[in-house]
Amino acid sequence: MAQMVRVHNFNVSSDGYGAGEGQSLERPFGDADATALFSWSGATAHGPTRTEPGGSYGLDDYCTREWHRNVGAEIMGRNKFGPQRGPWENLEWEGWWGAEPPFRTPVFVLTHHVRPSITRGATTFHFLNASPKEALAQALDAADGKDVRIGGGVATVRAFLEADLIDQMHVAVAPVELGRGEQLWTSPDTLTDRFHLERIPSPSGVTHHFFWRK
Amino acid sequence: MAQMVRVHNFNVSSDGYGAGEGQSLERPFGDADATALFSWSGATAHGPTRTEPGGSYGLDDYCTREWHRNVGAEIMGRNKFGPQRGPWENLEWEGWWGAEPPFRTPVFVLTHHVRPSITRGATTFHFLNASPKEALAQALDAADGKDVRIGGGVATVRAFLEADLIDQMHVAVAPVELGRGEQLWTSPDTLTDRFHLERIPSPSGVTHHFFWRK
Repeated sequence: MAQMVRVHNFNVSSDGYGAGEGQSLERPFGDADATALFSWSGATAHGPTRTEPGGSYGLDDYCTREWHRNVGAEIMGRNKFGPQRGPWENLEWEGWWGAEPPFRTPVFVLTHHVRPSITRGATTFHFLNASPKEALAQALDAADGKDVRIGGGVATVRAFLEADLIDQMHVAVAPVELGRGEQLWTSPDTLTDRFHLERIPSPSGVTHHFFWRK
Repeated sequence: MAQMVRVHNFNVSSDGYGAGEGQSLERPFGDADATALFSWSGATAHGPTRTEPGGSYGLDDYCTREWHRNVGAEIMGRNKFGPQRGPWENLEWEGWWGAEPPFRTPVFVLTHHVRPSITRGATTFHFLNASPKEALAQALDAADGKDVRIGGGVATVRAFLEADLIDQMHVAVAPVELGRGEQLWTSPDTLTDRFHLERIPSPSGVTHHFFWRK
């Protein structure tokens, strides 16, 4: 099949916020309570933070697993990579994820302040000062025939939506309001001119939103 | 993770029938209208009969794709392999699936009438006169660390349930009544003593039932 550009397991509040304000080293999601957005995935058998057997194998686990399937590269914004802003003061920061980042593919970090690539475990981070379209061309090439995941945060997903570069998108909407911060949308219906939209409520409380191009 | 024994994309009517009566070469599902049971999957982007681009990427497609994921062997009953009964009159029959069966793994066919193995494309069919437990031991070994799918039909899934050998099960319940035939259950609630059960209605009309061991 053709290579796809996909968003998966992107989490927003019922009012469309994916993060609060004031990101810092201690608070990667700013002043928002990220737990309320992510707990559905953490409870699954394939949850990214699971260290022991157990967890659910229902709808939420299907969605959690999909994050990995047939992905050959990721593109993320600099604010997903780290809390720093502006020129790098030094190169000690190598991401939030330690020695074995979960991506296990090339990852392209969009930034106005490029730096040398970093390899940690099976993941290599490349830093690009590029438009969404230019970055995507590189990521599609690096993905070796597999799909490219747009990893976020909110500003990065919005930039790729605005450039009309996304084929499929899974967004889990949590039953909490944040009221302020980084907003993905005022309503998912703002995207239905271009995308099919299926809303599937999960017993966990989130509503999975599946978008695919019309 | 540990190897799992899984059922996926098993289709039954609202009254629990997976096939009608009177299976024949022309009617693999007997006198039941199988179209009504299977159409949800055929409409998806990854539907097994799809030959052109298109199709949905929502919940039904997630379920359809899962049939392949991390499966290293299948076990099926003889009635899934073909419509013949009793001793093989000859060995011309090699399954319904032509030169490229979709399994692409070893497949163990349970039968009282064994015959030599058959390789077609990436699939090899082995014929075993064995109990569910004995067959599963061989399939787990052949699966090379991956999971084993119990492929059906109804009698085979029931036998593995009765032997308590199934870890996860996905059954799509279609909004049609068949009234007679091969019955998987009188109600999915008959399994909730041993399994968690999540029921997720799909916009296509089927209700996906996800079971996993308690």
